[in-house]
Amino acid sequence: MDVLIYDTTLRDGAQGEGLSFSLDDKLKIVEKLDYLGIAYIEGGWPGSNPKDLEFFNQVRNLDLKHARITAFGSTRKPGIGVKQDANLQALQQAGVATVTIFGKAWDFHVLRALETTLEENLNMIRESISYLKEQGMEVFFDAEHFFDGYKNNANYALQVLQAAQEVGAGYLVLCDTNGGTLSWEIEEIIKEVQKYSRVPLGIHAHNDSASAVGNSLIAVRQGCSQVQGTINGYGERCGNADLCSIIPNLELKMDKRVLPPGNLKRLAEVSHYISEIANMPHHNNQPFVGYGAFAHKGGIHVNALLKDSLTYEHIDPEEVGNHRRVLVSELSGLSNLLYKARELNIDINNYDHETRRVIKQIKEMESQGLQFEGADASLELFLRKAFGQYEDFFQLKNLKLIIEKNEDSPITAEAMVKLTIGEKTFHTAAEGDGPVNALDNSLRKAITEVYPEIGEMHLSDYKVRVLNGNEGTAARVRVLIESADQKSKWSTVGVSENIIEASWQAIVDSINYLLFKKQIT
Amino acid sequence: MDVLIYDTTLRDGAQGEGLSFSLDDKLKIVEKLDYLGIAYIEGGWPGSNPKDLEFFNQVRNLDLKHARITAFGSTRKPGIGVKQDANLQALQQAGVATVTIFGKAWDFHVLRALETTLEENLNMIRESISYLKEQGMEVFFDAEHFFDGYKNNANYALQVLQAAQEVGAGYLVLCDTNGGTLSWEIEEIIKEVQKYSRVPLGIHAHNDSASAVGNSLIAVRQGCSQVQGTINGYGERCGNADLCSIIPNLELKMDKRVLPPGNLKRLAEVSHYISEIANMPHHNNQPFVGYGAFAHKGGIHVNALLKDSLTYEHIDPEEVGNHRRVLVSELSGLSNLLYKARELNIDINNYDHETRRVIKQIKEMESQGLQFEGADASLELFLRKAFGQYEDFFQLKNLKLIIEKNEDSPITAEAMVKLTIGEKTFHTAAEGDGPVNALDNSLRKAITEVYPEIGEMHLSDYKVRVLNGNEGTAARVRVLIESADQKSKWSTVGVSENIIEASWQAIVDSINYLLFKKQIT
Repeated sequence: MDVLIYDTTLRDGAQGEGLSFSLDDKLKIVEKLDYLGIAYIEGGWPGSNPKDLEFFNQVRNLDLKHARITAFGSTRKPGIGVKQDANLQALQQAGVATVTIFGKAWDFHVLRALETTLEENLNMIRESISYLKEQGMEVFFDAEHFFDGYKNNANYALQVLQAAQEVGAGYLVLCDTNGGTLSWEIEEIIKEVQKYSRVPLGIHAHNDSASAVGNSLIAVRQGCSQVQGTINGYGERCGNADLCSIIPNLELKMDKRVLPPGNLKRLAEVSHYISEIANMPHHNNQPFVGYGAFAHKGGIHVNALLKDSLTYEHIDPEEVGNHRRVLVSELSGLSNLLYKARELNIDINNYDHETRRVIKQIKEMESQGLQFEGADASLELFLRKAFGQYEDFFQLKNLKLIIEKNEDSPITAEAMVKLTIGEKTFHTAAEGDGPVNALDNSLRKAITEVYPEIGEMHLSDYKVRVLNGNEGTAARVRVLIESADQKSKWSTVGVSENIIEASWQAIVDSINYLLFKKQIT
Repeated sequence: MDVLIYDTTLRDGAQGEGLSFSLDDKLKIVEKLDYLGIAYIEGGWPGSNPKDLEFFNQVRNLDLKHARITAFGSTRKPGIGVKQDANLQALQQAGVATVTIFGKAWDFHVLRALETTLEENLNMIRESISYLKEQGMEVFFDAEHFFDGYKNNANYALQVLQAAQEVGAGYLVLCDTNGGTLSWEIEEIIKEVQKYSRVPLGIHAHNDSASAVGNSLIAVRQGCSQVQGTINGYGERCGNADLCSIIPNLELKMDKRVLPPGNLKRLAEVSHYISEIANMPHHNNQPFVGYGAFAHKGGIHVNALLKDSLTYEHIDPEEVGNHRRVLVSELSGLSNLLYKARELNIDINNYDHETRRVIKQIKEMESQGLQFEGADASLELFLRKAFGQYEDFFQLKNLKLIIEKNEDSPITAEAMVKLTIGEKTFHTAAEGDGPVNALDNSLRKAITEVYPEIGEMHLSDYKVRVLNGNEGTAARVRVLIESADQKSKWSTVGVSENIIEASWQAIVDSINYLLFKKQIT
């Protein structure tokens, strides 16, 4: 590899707001990162989170092809010996081959935060690294607050690096811990450091100035051969450097090999997978891997796009496992709809009059809040219905939902559904953990005799967005449901002032979509 | 101003997926941008969206203090005269003092997308700009795909700039339309352009390589004096350059005046306001203005933070109108909770035993999905209740909710609520647009006699997140409600498998919070 990718999603990334990984989550993430081909995975900080020791215990059972697991920890505390330091002991217990030690490189921090002397700090660094190397470990050194430290007292910052390298640190990783450094400063400071460093350099950037990715790239350009970051840029405050942006930029634009050959195509999949485990929304507009990263809206673009994709795309989306999308929207001309229909194999050329009618319908629905963006399955059903290619698989006659809560008992929800499939009527009742679950259970009961295949699908995500919040609880809501079976996922939408009705629309679409797909395959 | 900020939220930003501004939205955004002190606001593209003409009509009625409104448009079409070109005519009709014309700077585009000759393209640029200048307008020139164009045929790209400048373009704005250019390339190419340009340069970056902000900053460093971007980085695909990152970086780190003195403090407010109008979620981790941009979680940081904020913050959050936050979470030590309690003026020092009990309770609730992050009002009520400073203002005895839909009639929702306030019982019923609205109406009816002040608050946002999506419709959901009155906003949370119960918890907290605040002020 030209550049080693060092992933700290499980350690630094986990400090992001709203993030919290179970042991099981962590092991799944490790396997997925290994599948991508990441070189190093920082698994935790056993000295700070004793629970992490259980992770290091269990991760040994995984059969990893590429990744080396590392443990993170601080230098020994001021004024005590390495053997008495609980943190270093915990690092040993982790039983990994590589550890990353962080030490203060900013004199201000040493004096105020650690409340010790500049000389003792250097001793802490030297002794901690030596001790771990004596135990046979590979040791990387994270120089915390390096760039601020260098700007304030360059001499001391360099002494810190010197202390680490003279006792055998394998890498000196320069950390922009506060995230405040701009790219040309990164470049200039690394240039200076290179006059003194005899050991490979790494970069660990944070995104507080919206510059983490750029800073990492310019650091590599300047000679760093290790980049630390997290998947999807997870991390405290504005996050760590996003590896999902760094990796493709390095491979496709800077001609650096960082993953095993052919693995870059796995990037989007890994990014989405980890966001699901993390239970974090996957941002539509995330560079390279976002669902909308290659989504084209303006009519003029799509015209050109249909002719030559090089005109409007900086890379081929398939290189990172992503796809081009064409959005149908009020800015769309005929060409957007043509593109969508072509994707769906709807022969649209004969339908000019109908096509314009359909566009008009879509714009009307959109002004009511029924945007199809992000709900491709609903759009497909709508288009097919509009062009006479599809009919619903069941008709609702009546639904009732009753929810009750007494002071001291848990809340209950029950639903009754009456529907017809062809000539036959089905009338069922079911309970549920909540109203949507009760409806879903009742609906499935009603159709399962005729359509047993619905047993294969389940809801994998459910989102609600209030469309006109100033209407308070009377606002229109848009429900987006993602459903999945073994092989694929699909998204459907429903809009109403009544969240139950909106959910119902989205559920009905998701079931109809499954049944339609099964019918045609 | 050292650098002119040119906002294209209403034009380029509006091409973002899921974005759609009404006329009213646009006028509100213009006023807010003027309040911030933006120099230029691009209002629309009348040649492409005839609806935009109504905007240009109405925007004249606003009393703007700083901003100049511009209109955007393409050069005349190949092979027709300027007077016959509908787009240029529409630009005139917009009746603004400044227009921005875009023209192709990449030979490939001219030949393939426009299907005309390289020479005709130069004519189109010259004639269009001259024509508009003759009408008395200030004209900026956006050189579309400039960096790709320069890399492929530098000579032609420079000819394009030359054509624009020789007929009086006020600015040559270099556009990285595909968003694929990296920062050192931006720097090198601008350096070359400067040998030939006699007119000030601008930069218009896109974020496909996660480099838009960095590219804009390095362009300014290299001499550009106009930066185009959007609020919150809205825009097609991965968005335009985020002005909310660019503006503070320029003012606080590069010593460039870009807003009227003192206006930088308005940044966070403007960012949030526009995201609400746009109905887009405001990302917690957005640099500078995100709700979590200065949120500190790890126990070690907060310890240092309490001593000296310079240790962990690259700027003072108040400079951009943001605030420091301390997160209470499983990584939190005693110091995080102390900080929170201190903020709330809860005298916590005496409660060591109780404090540890409370931390334990919080961790247990979090493992059930009841995270307080983003729901500060619920956290405050919880803490005050835990320390005996607060009691609920009403007690629920029973609630019932009935939802019904017949095949051909609209869905109905009605709720019954029985509760007590002190000794008195209130038993009400109400209908609603949906279940949550019906409950809310019924609850308000029940308590309004004793607490008429609840008439002042309303729900301003409502979010639902599924916590364990693989449970399908039986998953636990977390409801986050944002409430507002004239003066402030507050967020509350509820968690349950039943979305009605989760919503109920959040609504009850939001009402109790209002009543508590009114009681103590």
